[in-house]
Amino acid sequence: MRDVLAAWRPVIDREIERLLPREIDVEYVARAFGEPTYEYDPVAIQRALPDPIWNLLDRGGKRWRAVVCCLLIDGFGADPHEYLPYACIPEILHNGTIIVDDVEDGATMRRGEAALHREAGTDVALNAGNAMYFLPLNIVAHNPGDLDAEIRLAIYEMLMYELNRTHLGQGMDIHWHNEQAIRMSETQYLEMCACKTGCLGRIVARLAALITDQSDETERCAARYAERMSIAFQIGDDILDIENADEDGGAFGKAVGNDIREGKKTLMAIHAANEASPERAARLEELLWADENSDDEIREAIEILRETDSVAYARERALELAGEARDALRELDIDDEIADDLAEFTRFVIERDV
Amino acid sequence: MRDVLAAWRPVIDREIERLLPREIDVEYVARAFGEPTYEYDPVAIQRALPDPIWNLLDRGGKRWRAVVCCLLIDGFGADPHEYLPYACIPEILHNGTIIVDDVEDGATMRRGEAALHREAGTDVALNAGNAMYFLPLNIVAHNPGDLDAEIRLAIYEMLMYELNRTHLGQGMDIHWHNEQAIRMSETQYLEMCACKTGCLGRIVARLAALITDQSDETERCAARYAERMSIAFQIGDDILDIENADEDGGAFGKAVGNDIREGKKTLMAIHAANEASPERAARLEELLWADENSDDEIREAIEILRETDSVAYARERALELAGEARDALRELDIDDEIADDLAEFTRFVIERDV
Repeated sequence: MRDVLAAWRPVIDREIERLLPREIDVEYVARAFGEPTYEYDPVAIQRALPDPIWNLLDRGGKRWRAVVCCLLIDGFGADPHEYLPYACIPEILHNGTIIVDDVEDGATMRRGEAALHREAGTDVALNAGNAMYFLPLNIVAHNPGDLDAEIRLAIYEMLMYELNRTHLGQGMDIHWHNEQAIRMSETQYLEMCACKTGCLGRIVARLAALITDQSDETERCAARYAERMSIAFQIGDDILDIENADEDGGAFGKAVGNDIREGKKTLMAIHAANEASPERAARLEELLWADENSDDEIREAIEILRETDSVAYARERALELAGEARDALRELDIDDEIADDLAEFTRFVIERDV
Repeated sequence: MRDVLAAWRPVIDREIERLLPREIDVEYVARAFGEPTYEYDPVAIQRALPDPIWNLLDRGGKRWRAVVCCLLIDGFGADPHEYLPYACIPEILHNGTIIVDDVEDGATMRRGEAALHREAGTDVALNAGNAMYFLPLNIVAHNPGDLDAEIRLAIYEMLMYELNRTHLGQGMDIHWHNEQAIRMSETQYLEMCACKTGCLGRIVARLAALITDQSDETERCAARYAERMSIAFQIGDDILDIENADEDGGAFGKAVGNDIREGKKTLMAIHAANEASPERAARLEELLWADENSDDEIREAIEILRETDSVAYARERALELAGEARDALRELDIDDEIADDLAEFTRFVIERDV
């Protein structure tokens, strides 16, 4: 799987760079955005869009969403190289949501550096992040791969459906974060992940299915594969935040124990709140609710999660979801070798250590 | 014109309320966003979306974008009541941009109250503002008015085109704001307005033209009418900020002299920087660049704008643009009475006192 990622990574990066050049001039702006009514200021546009966008993109990221999209297109019998711009859509959207999320959360770090809004300013970062919601949607209008109008409309409707649900999931997460009580159910937590993280995964899969004109049933199956895998990925992310907090100098890009500092209601926290004694559950709520946490308090919160075996529980649920993703995959009629690669991703999302 | 606004206002408000109910339940969420994979938390969704959205919408706003859209649909020979949801698209988008802009600018006030992010928190406000970028785009997929697939695709492509340019304009404005020098040209300033404010106006007009299946030429003319009027509106807005700053207790919703405090490079500032002596121009740059301004400094900046007749100059340019909007209107084949109402809007945007 790492080989697959390594092989595709430069292809995807080259394509993103073609879609969003690092250095722009007025000719590019006119081509990409249309002729000006009056006169563009290319210097201002360079500083406002490519500079902050590449500041983030150059920090890394595995581009697995674009790679999974390419693998699915391949699996559905088409040449992914013909549809590379579409595979970049969820990748650009994802990086846009990262910028916006960091502003919303008041995050300090991202991928080992200061969060973009701390480096470029909230105004520049936020506008660039929001631009990354719309820049990729223009790709469909430019119509690479010469798709039928019917398919392009279906792609737009799909994107609007999924991007609306993304904001629903983010809204649930934010509201919970603003409540002291851990009162949401596990199924509501999974729904939040299905919306917030799962919808971007679903975009990956549904794009591949729509581009290659698959049946509704195939599109649904592919979407389920990507959705379950994305939820597992999210839970894996939350587990990593705790595991790295346990180690000295964890390699994770974000500050370790960040979720506890931020007061995030993770699946582990929900499970612990349900399983712990009322006193310990109340203490966990208190620690998550506090504006600041000392290192000792972080350790105390992790101790509560450990007492209730909540980290192990979350890992089990993530493994289950990854299994469901592979079940969905088996219902798809695709080449064994590609299916194996796609199945590998469902393991990677949980077993990765960064 | 005020009569037209007053007559339409309750119709538009009722429609927005139908599209975005004040109180939601799981049935509504499933209908509007699709069935959950697991389980929605309607309480969290209520607090995350309808509450902040209506917090802003209830503060007022003239809903002129929706009304102009209805008038144009009427002028193009269709019944606007059949297409009300489409007329609400630019209105909801506009209110979303207001929330996001206020976060970007670190604004304190909006429509006479604390800016939404100060009241609801940056996380809630920003997610709600961004949700308002996508909620209205789903309207096209739900297809009220039973439009052909071809028209719906054209609407999506148009929306993506204009919403990309919106972020281009906002990016230029933000970058200029982050430079001390007033170095942009007047045509670049007009381009920024054409993108940032004009594109929302163009959406109003192009929606009306697309829905009623007008020719490309008619769509272009209608878009020009709305674009020029929107630029005039923006310049009018900037003038009002100065005029109200001159009076005691101006009725304007935002803090008066706000643009100077914020260091906004308005058309007046650009004109003054070009016309004033190098010393006075440098002093203006310095005042706009300062983190804080005393009331005396605000008065001093306004004095520089007055010395160069920059307020009068800006008003002239706004009147010219309003004239261009009316020229575009005359090229459209629409009923005289409706054309008169539409022409009235081009006067209102400059002559309004709030």
